[in-house]
Amino acid sequence: MKKIFLRSMLGVFGFFLMTETSFAETTMSAEGQYIFNSLAFYIGGVLVAFMAAGFCMLESGLVTNKSVSSIAAKNIGKFAICSLVFFLVGYNLAYGISEGGYIGSFSIWGDASNMDVGYSDSSDWFFQTMFVCATVSIVSGAVAERIKIWPFFLFAVIMSGFIYPVSMGWQWGGGWLSAAGFSDFAGSTVVHACGGAAALAGVIVLGARTGRFSGSGSKRIMVPFAASSIPLTTLGTFLLWFGWFGFNGFSQLAMGTFDDVNAISKIAVNTHLAGAAGTFAGAAITRLIGGKTDIVMMLNGALAGLVAITAEPLTPTPGMAIVIGAIGAIIMYFGTKMLESFGIDDVVGAIPVHMFAGIFGTLVVPVSNGDTSFGSQFLGTLSICAFSFILSYIVFSAMKATIGLRISKEAEKLGTDKAEIGVTAYAIRD
Amino acid sequence: MKKIFLRSMLGVFGFFLMTETSFAETTMSAEGQYIFNSLAFYIGGVLVAFMAAGFCMLESGLVTNKSVSSIAAKNIGKFAICSLVFFLVGYNLAYGISEGGYIGSFSIWGDASNMDVGYSDSSDWFFQTMFVCATVSIVSGAVAERIKIWPFFLFAVIMSGFIYPVSMGWQWGGGWLSAAGFSDFAGSTVVHACGGAAALAGVIVLGARTGRFSGSGSKRIMVPFAASSIPLTTLGTFLLWFGWFGFNGFSQLAMGTFDDVNAISKIAVNTHLAGAAGTFAGAAITRLIGGKTDIVMMLNGALAGLVAITAEPLTPTPGMAIVIGAIGAIIMYFGTKMLESFGIDDVVGAIPVHMFAGIFGTLVVPVSNGDTSFGSQFLGTLSICAFSFILSYIVFSAMKATIGLRISKEAEKLGTDKAEIGVTAYAIRD
Amino acid sequence: MKKIFLRSMLGVFGFFLMTETSFAETTMSAEGQYIFNSLAFYIGGVLVAFMAAGFCMLESGLVTNKSVSSIAAKNIGKFAICSLVFFLVGYNLAYGISEGGYIGSFSIWGDASNMDVGYSDSSDWFFQTMFVCATVSIVSGAVAERIKIWPFFLFAVIMSGFIYPVSMGWQWGGGWLSAAGFSDFAGSTVVHACGGAAALAGVIVLGARTGRFSGSGSKRIMVPFAASSIPLTTLGTFLLWFGWFGFNGFSQLAMGTFDDVNAISKIAVNTHLAGAAGTFAGAAITRLIGGKTDIVMMLNGALAGLVAITAEPLTPTPGMAIVIGAIGAIIMYFGTKMLESFGIDDVVGAIPVHMFAGIFGTLVVPVSNGDTSFGSQFLGTLSICAFSFILSYIVFSAMKATIGLRISKEAEKLGTDKAEIGVTAYAIRD
Repeated sequence: MKKIFLRSMLGVFGFFLMTETSFAETTMSAEGQYIFNSLAFYIGGVLVAFMAAGFCMLESGLVTNKSVSSIAAKNIGKFAICSLVFFLVGYNLAYGISEGGYIGSFSIWGDASNMDVGYSDSSDWFFQTMFVCATVSIVSGAVAERIKIWPFFLFAVIMSGFIYPVSMGWQWGGGWLSAAGFSDFAGSTVVHACGGAAALAGVIVLGARTGRFSGSGSKRIMVPFAASSIPLTTLGTFLLWFGWFGFNGFSQLAMGTFDDVNAISKIAVNTHLAGAAGTFAGAAITRLIGGKTDIVMMLNGALAGLVAITAEPLTPTPGMAIVIGAIGAIIMYFGTKMLESFGIDDVVGAIPVHMFAGIFGTLVVPVSNGDTSFGSQFLGTLSICAFSFILSYIVFSAMKATIGLRISKEAEKLGTDKAEIGVTAYAIRD
Repeated sequence: MKKIFLRSMLGVFGFFLMTETSFAETTMSAEGQYIFNSLAFYIGGVLVAFMAAGFCMLESGLVTNKSVSSIAAKNIGKFAICSLVFFLVGYNLAYGISEGGYIGSFSIWGDASNMDVGYSDSSDWFFQTMFVCATVSIVSGAVAERIKIWPFFLFAVIMSGFIYPVSMGWQWGGGWLSAAGFSDFAGSTVVHACGGAAALAGVIVLGARTGRFSGSGSKRIMVPFAASSIPLTTLGTFLLWFGWFGFNGFSQLAMGTFDDVNAISKIAVNTHLAGAAGTFAGAAITRLIGGKTDIVMMLNGALAGLVAITAEPLTPTPGMAIVIGAIGAIIMYFGTKMLESFGIDDVVGAIPVHMFAGIFGTLVVPVSNGDTSFGSQFLGTLSICAFSFILSYIVFSAMKATIGLRISKEAEKLGTDKAEIGVTAYAIRD
Repeated sequence: MKKIFLRSMLGVFGFFLMTETSFAETTMSAEGQYIFNSLAFYIGGVLVAFMAAGFCMLESGLVTNKSVSSIAAKNIGKFAICSLVFFLVGYNLAYGISEGGYIGSFSIWGDASNMDVGYSDSSDWFFQTMFVCATVSIVSGAVAERIKIWPFFLFAVIMSGFIYPVSMGWQWGGGWLSAAGFSDFAGSTVVHACGGAAALAGVIVLGARTGRFSGSGSKRIMVPFAASSIPLTTLGTFLLWFGWFGFNGFSQLAMGTFDDVNAISKIAVNTHLAGAAGTFAGAAITRLIGGKTDIVMMLNGALAGLVAITAEPLTPTPGMAIVIGAIGAIIMYFGTKMLESFGIDDVVGAIPVHMFAGIFGTLVVPVSNGDTSFGSQFLGTLSICAFSFILSYIVFSAMKATIGLRISKEAEKLGTDKAEIGVTAYAIRD
């Protein structure tokens, strides 16, 4: 009897050892997953925060010498305002949406962390907030050098407190676009094309900078305005690129399992290669077409490649990511020329980079991701771009008609730095 | 019998499965906690290291064109010197203190890692070292453009090797202030007000830059000195802001449990919102009072908001964090005006940002943290500020009387860059 | 019977509890290790990516005003090209090597992640790719201001697709140098001296910039060319320094155990202290010898200290790390003077920083690491430097003889920015 008992015990013992092995040795505990997931949001949030500095440097470098301090003020001001507004109203407007619904609730965000949620709610808010800051950054560069600073801040309030959260909730909050099968992993449309469409509305309502174009129609010629600092523009692009490792990678929204960390890593590879391909395409196309190797087109090529891969950075092979990035940059290049031919003055190229490459990236998702269809991708892209463009157009026009949107001719001649900020950006002599 | 045995076994089996579930599935192992805690210090250390670059860019941008290379040399030099000194003597002076004591031991730090400590001792040293570098950075900006570089380096030795570690040990080393109930989570007083008080001593002993003020008493007028680069100043502020996510978040000193990672995340939210509120307050107050939206006051407003929340970033609600950040910025604004009216020449506004907002942040802790009292907060703030101010004053005065502290009139006219470093900062022509 | 049974069960229960304790409570699960290891590569990759921005800012700041945009274009272009090439051919050339072998396979990298590998293969590729980008960055600074941009890009293809991966595989791929006992932890030779040797070949084939030297032989005098921006140079150095926390720390290649995270942390301390010692040595030596405290020598001193500790950042005591860093900087200082006396025009000091300090760091490994010998260290250093120098010399010479390597005299007078990129770097007026 005892023998049988012992043998039975050994059987049980063996079973538990096996259980032990399969549980404790090969899987991550719930608490461990919770920590990893929260840490993913934390690191991701910090990396996407670097994009705020990236946009600021990129835009500071590309505007003329007269508007550098203003663009800096707009960028850090918008970083602050969007964060405050997204806390007060935006987050719950996006994520408080009912399944398949159209709009969430107008209420202040509050931390709802518990173990079952699987991550710290605060870390999620932190991560998501940096996305709205990025969206509004896209606008600030396009409308630079002639928009008044406080009307821009008011637009930032409306964009971060209504336009972005509502349309973002349609997809990431589980709203009607998500139910319709639309898929935008990290925001080629939700962030980039949305921001680009708002920028397009802004530059149309504002009009071009004085002296930017001479002639009109087919005889329109763009007058080159010298970028104030190419090295700062380059620094900004690098910071944006690195920020994208958080933007795309941690949009996996989890890191606590074998599958999640593999996904994050694969996304980093695809994101990096798409940016690399976009950079190279920007260099090659300008060298082949224009004769000189255009640094600004290399930088905007990098960004366009990164924007294009953002809608689906996980399912493409690395080879496909390279192709997507390169095409994104080519679309950006011809989009830039097209806007110029229409007399549209987008100071930093935000519309071709973020809207055009973003739309392309979203529409190309079905090629690698079999769970999506071109129809739903088209529906999602169109809906969000139209929503953002129309509302932004109305808001900018309303401001133009009431409080005023554009600085005076005299102020523009003086430059926004002296007129609105009261300082010059540089006081440098050899 | 066999039936009973099997049933018993099933009961045991079920019990172990449950145990298994509650152990392996829901809690983190000791080794896992050790890794997470060490990783927290590592990531935190890297983020706080970015503050060294942030301070360098902020100060490089705010000084005049003649002192940019000098401030860069001082910043990277101080980063090096403080790290070496904190290894040789500072760390054990702070953490080698007896409970409730006044001073630790004069000895070289050595790694004492073991599983029971709960984190890698090296990662803790790495993290803590970046804090002393930040403290001394605060001084370098205030005294810029007229202090000699090597006396400044000598001061950095004394600050990182004695003044900071001794007073820091009173609180974080478990010394007498900690025993008296003083609470300063991440260093509104221990780092920021301490650095600000030393800066105040420095600028008083040094005197103002030549030509900074005309007239005296109530007729004193501050002559504006043009900041060399607003975009670099803005970049520096962004880097400091991001560094604060390490500075405050990882001052939780642990990440290996559900509670710790929630705390870190909540701190990030409060820190970010306080910085945002400070930025907005800086923009609003200058627009309302001065007419123009002052970019430097926005940037210093961001920093003042961040300093103010640093003493207690965990217990306030996000709404309270916003209020604390905004008040910090307002105090910084009026503090700046007050110092100017006294003829005190703080080149970058380090004293109002770090000392004034830091004192406010420390004193306001009891409002959200019921475990603290205004009395102990006042005691801690006063003790550390007085200790730092008095010792710094003595050290600066002693140097002034012996090796000399201030560059000559001729050198000042030429600028510290040419006089002490032998280069100009910029060689830029259009 | 029942009693005995129960007692037996308690014994079993106790045993399992103990097992439980020793497994689940004190060790990390395989999945947990996998996540930590992959995360180490991810964070490490992002930090080393920052080095690309660091090199770009450093080089942008050190070149003259006429070549800033070109160096920016070269840096971001190389970042893109090296990544694409390392994916297409380099990675498998390095890691597809047989044990003790000489060369891997010419094939595209593909993700081979599985639990047994212990980390996500994509995260490893991501991390390793940033190393090849760093290697080629070293070359771009040395050959600045006179190399044509597309021949440089072609060299970047060959360096990242053949020279670096082949010689790197000898050591890190487990090739013949590894078998011969050569040890280079994070790449003092594999990355830094390899890049420096290629840079040396480049500057010899190219020749000095026009007007850089007057006279010849012992009467040769170096004409100072003004660095365009000291603050950007300083920023670049800071970014490189922080990137080194990823470069060295995560070259531990694992983070999932007590021992690994302790090693990473210890490496961070040694790396930081070596950089600090190099900075201080650069300041002290120039103050003592030249009279002025040379900011560029402080910055290059920091980098030389960091390069020197890279071959073995784990086994030295912190005190030894300080000595190694300081000697690295001193070697860099005298190496710079030596190259100047030979009429070799290394624009940013890449050869003394990366090659000379890298060789020193590799040769000094046996002092702290008893598993290595001076003989194998010498063999490894010589082999890799010679391989890199000879192949680079052949490639540069072949390009010079065919497609042309150096811009025309007229283009050089105009500057590479206007001649090749078609923009000026700065358009700044007070």
